[in-house]
Amino acid sequence: MPAVTLQIEWNITMSDTSNPLKVGIAGLGTVGVGVIKILRDHADLLSQRVGRSIEVCAVSARSKGRDRGVDLTGFTWCDDATELASIGEVDIVVELIGGSDGPALALARETLKTGKSFITANKALIAVHGKELATLAEENNASLRFEAAVAGGIPILKSLAEGLAGNDVSGLYGILNGTCNYILTRMEREGLAFADVLADAQRLGYAEADPTFDIDGIDTAHKTAILAAIAFGMAPDMDSMPIEGIRNIAPVDIDYAQELGYRIKLLGLARRTADGVETRVIPAMVPLSASLANVMDATNAVVVDGDFSGPTVYVGAGAGEGPTASSVVADIIDVARGNVYPAFGVPAASLQNLPALPADKHSGTYYIRLRVNDQPGVMADITAALARESVSIESLIQRGTAPDEGVYIVMTTHQTVESSALSILKHFTALECVLETPTLIRIETF
Amino acid sequence: MPAVTLQIEWNITMSDTSNPLKVGIAGLGTVGVGVIKILRDHADLLSQRVGRSIEVCAVSARSKGRDRGVDLTGFTWCDDATELASIGEVDIVVELIGGSDGPALALARETLKTGKSFITANKALIAVHGKELATLAEENNASLRFEAAVAGGIPILKSLAEGLAGNDVSGLYGILNGTCNYILTRMEREGLAFADVLADAQRLGYAEADPTFDIDGIDTAHKTAILAAIAFGMAPDMDSMPIEGIRNIAPVDIDYAQELGYRIKLLGLARRTADGVETRVIPAMVPLSASLANVMDATNAVVVDGDFSGPTVYVGAGAGEGPTASSVVADIIDVARGNVYPAFGVPAASLQNLPALPADKHSGTYYIRLRVNDQPGVMADITAALARESVSIESLIQRGTAPDEGVYIVMTTHQTVESSALSILKHFTALECVLETPTLIRIETF
Repeated sequence: MPAVTLQIEWNITMSDTSNPLKVGIAGLGTVGVGVIKILRDHADLLSQRVGRSIEVCAVSARSKGRDRGVDLTGFTWCDDATELASIGEVDIVVELIGGSDGPALALARETLKTGKSFITANKALIAVHGKELATLAEENNASLRFEAAVAGGIPILKSLAEGLAGNDVSGLYGILNGTCNYILTRMEREGLAFADVLADAQRLGYAEADPTFDIDGIDTAHKTAILAAIAFGMAPDMDSMPIEGIRNIAPVDIDYAQELGYRIKLLGLARRTADGVETRVIPAMVPLSASLANVMDATNAVVVDGDFSGPTVYVGAGAGEGPTASSVVADIIDVARGNVYPAFGVPAASLQNLPALPADKHSGTYYIRLRVNDQPGVMADITAALARESVSIESLIQRGTAPDEGVYIVMTTHQTVESSALSILKHFTALECVLETPTLIRIETF
Repeated sequence: MPAVTLQIEWNITMSDTSNPLKVGIAGLGTVGVGVIKILRDHADLLSQRVGRSIEVCAVSARSKGRDRGVDLTGFTWCDDATELASIGEVDIVVELIGGSDGPALALARETLKTGKSFITANKALIAVHGKELATLAEENNASLRFEAAVAGGIPILKSLAEGLAGNDVSGLYGILNGTCNYILTRMEREGLAFADVLADAQRLGYAEADPTFDIDGIDTAHKTAILAAIAFGMAPDMDSMPIEGIRNIAPVDIDYAQELGYRIKLLGLARRTADGVETRVIPAMVPLSASLANVMDATNAVVVDGDFSGPTVYVGAGAGEGPTASSVVADIIDVARGNVYPAFGVPAASLQNLPALPADKHSGTYYIRLRVNDQPGVMADITAALARESVSIESLIQRGTAPDEGVYIVMTTHQTVESSALSILKHFTALECVLETPTLIRIETF
């Protein structure tokens, strides 16, 4: 294959060091306030590091009067965020509104069209409209950056797009949602049910009033789509990603995981296979010896497998005022220093539409838990079903009694294709001795 | 304090995308060969990512005839590495010779003087001559980069100088030498003495024939000096760094560490204190729950404490052909993309000479092990010595017999200043009941 080089000429120059770089911020929640604090508290440090001072000059939010603990005097106030794009002195617009469409998307389009750089912490926006916005950025010689959209304060996108840019990445695996990891950690430590921990997390402010995006894996999916896009040079693709959250994880599965040498984590994963790119969000059993297994509470972590670098791991706070603002400011600094390159590491026009691996073609090992009537012949029925699908078992535990009578039978399979594992599950469900829908959890050994 | 902004105008442009970027490589050991392999195997990928193709055009090494498993046809051969600097078509010189002075330093100076960019994996060169070379780079509009000098394939310098550039870093802590971590890991797992594991490591190629730089902490010190320079905006300072290696770590201390909830790791650490910057290399007891405690074998890891980001952790291979070459190529890509900024994150002229914290002013907790005659009054002598220095004890273990008679007494102190801990040690040594020089190991809880 001949080398196809798509060239972009960035016209942004570093010569204009006499004037401060002016930032407009849309959205003054905790992250927006954090950005203002960093730019204020570290003004001297940043002007040394950048060779130019960086100043907030305009802001937009819903309520002008609210006390946010930072002084907004001297900033131009915009009731409509989109106005930020048309303020002449604004060099960079920082979008912290959220949501894949609506005002965030409108602001992104307006900003990039005027050739200003656009920085966002909005994973939904980039996961859904990333290719369109990357194209717009290139057409207008603007920079589009979104470090804060994935894994909060961890510079994972920079590591992937720059630090590991010499590698062909075969896969990456991340704990990308702090709320889910916090819930799973407390379920394990305190032996509590999912619903109880969720209710408590909501009371403490660790989970949103509407927790769907977090616990059903959608937030993790947005971040996974962005990571996969940079790793593989493809457009972010939410449409072909199977997504499963942690609602159905039961304390008994957490206990069995531990007994089998695993811990359950909600993972976003992306890997190349011979049959297509597999991107997926699943609650998975991870060996206790794996780096990701020991990432607890609200901490995030990502493992990247590069062909030359080998695996590298990045761990840190996945959310919060300081960490997220730290990544937003890193993007601002990059733009100010003139470190510009295409949003997903390669020109938007050359982002590939890589075929997705269908979920049922996933090859892996599986944990299956059944609640059965404790009667003669049960094991014969189960093993017959396994034989019919040629699935072989690595380990099997039958012990004690389950609640509401019955006993648990827990097994882990050898490597098998997902369609077979799902067939097995159907056979099991149909057995008379099986008392409830069986539980299946994927095992990820990376 | 008014903002002091030192401005540098980089004249490097991104407009010259029509010609390939030409690289000259000095040193064709494993890393040099790795760089050639990446640039060859990923030529298409890299030209997409950079917008320009990257080609090796000249090489230099000691033996021209040696088979290195890569084709050198078409590369200009230089017997003298310094010649690479004067080859007109060379845009970037990659130095993989090693050593703080001699040909590596000569090549660095020549390259930067001609305005070509200089990329190196040479930690000794940068730790010793970093400020001079950074100045030379700026004076000549050239880029000086050395990602591969610290922690192999982990993009830690980029994370620090770019990804965390919005933060004031209060401290960083790293396992930076794979050989030492490998030796400590095997001592623990196999219960072997230091000398035995070292001999075996040398036989297996995990340790050099002359292992001094590694096991006595000098390699870790070079890397720590570089990390501190970027984190704190100071010139790399090897002169005021206390350095201690792992030669004196005994299996019995590894056992006691575990009993007390710690693991012994050779750490490079750098932190700001009220009395100066503390940079230091020490074998330290680290809580088993800390991220660094679980970094085993030859793996490297760095924890960075940013004031807004919170702690972030970076883990990966610290050496080897692929990982080190991956970081060298990341630097080449940065230069090719035009991502240029001062070598240590701020202009060389503004690198501070921060006062160093004298070693005996370190404040921390300590592990002390004594071998004593098992006779009446021993404990009274010991506690009297502690009282004299007002050092209080957190835990104390006296149990069993030590080899060659005597018993071990092991204690950990509460927070105390190092001068007091060292005085205690002197008192202990002078006691008649104490049979050998006491062992002191610092405890680091970060």
